[in-house]
Amino acid sequence: MNIDVAFTPDEVTSSDLVHSVVVVVDVLRATSTIVEALANGAKMVVPVPSTDEAVRIAQNIGRGDVLLCGERRSLPIEGFDLGNSPREFTAERVAGKTLVMTTTNGTPALALSASARRTLIASFLNLDAVADALVADGGPVIILGAGRERRFALEDAVCAGALVNRVTSRVAEEPKLNDTAVAAAMLAQAEEADLPDLLRNTAAGRQLIDAGLGDDIALCAMLNRHAIVPELRDRQITL
Amino acid sequence: MNIDVAFTPDEVTSSDLVHSVVVVVDVLRATSTIVEALANGAKMVVPVPSTDEAVRIAQNIGRGDVLLCGERRSLPIEGFDLGNSPREFTAERVAGKTLVMTTTNGTPALALSASARRTLIASFLNLDAVADALVADGGPVIILGAGRERRFALEDAVCAGALVNRVTSRVAEEPKLNDTAVAAAMLAQAEEADLPDLLRNTAAGRQLIDAGLGDDIALCAMLNRHAIVPELRDRQITL
Repeated sequence: MNIDVAFTPDEVTSSDLVHSVVVVVDVLRATSTIVEALANGAKMVVPVPSTDEAVRIAQNIGRGDVLLCGERRSLPIEGFDLGNSPREFTAERVAGKTLVMTTTNGTPALALSASARRTLIASFLNLDAVADALVADGGPVIILGAGRERRFALEDAVCAGALVNRVTSRVAEEPKLNDTAVAAAMLAQAEEADLPDLLRNTAAGRQLIDAGLGDDIALCAMLNRHAIVPELRDRQITL
Repeated sequence: MNIDVAFTPDEVTSSDLVHSVVVVVDVLRATSTIVEALANGAKMVVPVPSTDEAVRIAQNIGRGDVLLCGERRSLPIEGFDLGNSPREFTAERVAGKTLVMTTTNGTPALALSASARRTLIASFLNLDAVADALVADGGPVIILGAGRERRFALEDAVCAGALVNRVTSRVAEEPKLNDTAVAAAMLAQAEEADLPDLLRNTAAGRQLIDAGLGDDIALCAMLNRHAIVPELRDRQITL
């Protein structure tokens, strides 16, 4: 079994993806929010690259069944129903709804992974479930960190590494890792114990705290809160 | 003091560099070879992006004082005097010579850093000397890993982190690190003890072993073999 990690979308080309299961990780906060929303009964999440596109798709589907959600510079988008705080995505708000979502780093990574054989959504909230799904699939894996404005994001690297370590511990033969996966696994060993503190001290964590959204961090750091595996198919993320 | 690390040149834009001391790291093997060559008496190293450019510059300088050196896919370039093995750059071969060098990953990183306030060359061979130079300078630092074909290279990340840790231990006030520098420092703590083994198990290390150049790895893993700080000025690297 091959497991590659890419710290940013720039490290992956579409041709790498065709035969692989791609796992998209954007801990703070897009993939954490997607997991939380689907666990709380959202019908599907439709990731889109721009706010214009979000509005257009919402009009096509029928505005009554849709919630527009997302962020720019961490903050909710004017005229949208929800921001990108996983705490907002309660069963009361999202059950049965289609969520059209645009975020700075998460949705570009999801768009890139559309050419993959399969695309799964991971965060600390659903690590074990995704690890089980990868072992069951058995195919080559590319774990794709969303990064932060095309640069390395520590929280995504640690989450990717925690996933590498989980898969490694569940298969008989040691997986073949690229350099990035080796590094991610090392980072995860060192830091998994003190996750909320680690996340607060990343660039993304500090930006959330500065924006008054620091409470999101504790939620995004909860390990295995949900045993679900969101999957992207035909531009829709469902369970 | 600010210390940023970039795992690949793609993570840096020229505008980031203008006020910074940039430290270029390409452990396997360009910066190790540059350090070894200058320690053994080479007059200067002129990094160039292409073999054509190397030949043209050598003709301009006067072929008798010049050695053409470099690699493509780890191997020496046809018609060149030397490859990119630090073991080749002995005092007998290089003393007093101008080395015109082109390598796959190292020279692009050096070209990018030309707009920096200062550009230093680091490898495991001269870590302590570079750390001292950075502390003496006191300005913001960007440690730029050459990477491997625009992707993460574990050996450069560990070397960058070892440098971060050395500078941190030598200044009174804890430096401000970006996410990448935090990760690099963590990777260096875990692995500094078993450096030759770490290097052999990287993608670049395996490629060298496959090419019959595995003996280069032990040399590139020698800590502080030379107390020198090569610096790039006006397209020339000198001491």
